[in-house]
Amino acid sequence: MSIKRTEVRRLAQRGSIDRNTAYEIIDQAMVAHVGIIDEGFPVVIPMLCARDGDHLLLHGSSRSRLMRNLADGCEACVTVTLIDSLVLARSAFNHSANYRSLVVFGPTRPLRKLEDKRAALDKFVEQLIPGRSKDARPGNAGELKATLIVAMPIDEFSVKSRSGPPEDKRSDMDLSVWAGELPIRTRFGSPVPAPELEPDTPVPDYINRMIRRR
Amino acid sequence: MSIKRTEVRRLAQRGSIDRNTAYEIIDQAMVAHVGIIDEGFPVVIPMLCARDGDHLLLHGSSRSRLMRNLADGCEACVTVTLIDSLVLARSAFNHSANYRSLVVFGPTRPLRKLEDKRAALDKFVEQLIPGRSKDARPGNAGELKATLIVAMPIDEFSVKSRSGPPEDKRSDMDLSVWAGELPIRTRFGSPVPAPELEPDTPVPDYINRMIRRR
Repeated sequence: MSIKRTEVRRLAQRGSIDRNTAYEIIDQAMVAHVGIIDEGFPVVIPMLCARDGDHLLLHGSSRSRLMRNLADGCEACVTVTLIDSLVLARSAFNHSANYRSLVVFGPTRPLRKLEDKRAALDKFVEQLIPGRSKDARPGNAGELKATLIVAMPIDEFSVKSRSGPPEDKRSDMDLSVWAGELPIRTRFGSPVPAPELEPDTPVPDYINRMIRRR
Repeated sequence: MSIKRTEVRRLAQRGSIDRNTAYEIIDQAMVAHVGIIDEGFPVVIPMLCARDGDHLLLHGSSRSRLMRNLADGCEACVTVTLIDSLVLARSAFNHSANYRSLVVFGPTRPLRKLEDKRAALDKFVEQLIPGRSKDARPGNAGELKATLIVAMPIDEFSVKSRSGPPEDKRSDMDLSVWAGELPIRTRFGSPVPAPELEPDTPVPDYINRMIRRR
């Protein structure tokens, strides 16, 4: 844990080193923001993410410059953020958001065995749509070779979060301004079939479950 | 536009240099991921963002190490990502997400005048809750001094997006696997009043409008 890197010290009341929370954040997320240094400049790119036990997984085309850098073991910072609610205070200054975020540091290592890559590809599919990997055609050797998949140990990491009501100054408490939290929910809309799909192809149960659950 | 930095060249079909789309992405977003180099390592931190014309705004405590680095004009990369739908292909390999993302590079400059900072603070509040800045108490001199606000010109930037149905191989088109898009919607739940709020304080119209609109 590099305290310095992540400012956990300053925000001690928001900081916790909590592996379970870290896993939960990744498992509920769709996207991670991956930062590397490229020719001396910081670069941050959004990528789909997944988790395999105590490793965070990223993938992309083997033609991708970012993926090649990651596969070469460059230093990276992967940040995953969930916004839970907007926090409306009586004062503009104390407005905030309730959130959970995970920052993981370190180099990544590429998966090399086709079997490992196939299993990881399933993790990405399951991350987005639980149940899907048993339905979709698995990756074949050509596809897996065209894909770089890297794993980052969830080892040097920091979890930060905010929850609860706004914190207004005592002198603001009598202002007649509504204050509280506005929860944010991510939901799925009605599935849009691909144009060439046979019209009677049913929407799978695991998709209907997702739509109902969120 | 640094083509190299953002891999726009490789993903030419997804790349467009479109200022209006860049603005739209910021205006619809709640959070940006800000990357800098700190002691030789990449660091990516989530921050609330706002826009003032052709500048992206970030803010934080003047005690924050990241904010002080930004205010000192360090090189930064700010990435804003909106996920529009999950894209389910017949093959695991061709699963994807429809998204819009903006990557902006460059140093930031700090706002120094209290009036500029007060106007910027209102932009942050309006970004999250349109109409709110006329209701909440504006920032006072002490609060504005405790806040660092930096502006980044939306100048060296790259917009990338994916939209539309999955792209499966011809040989996969006859698989009896549902394929299509699963739209993602961000909605607001019922407002949760702060514990000390007078029980008869009405939820403002601009909040009810947000709940209905999303």
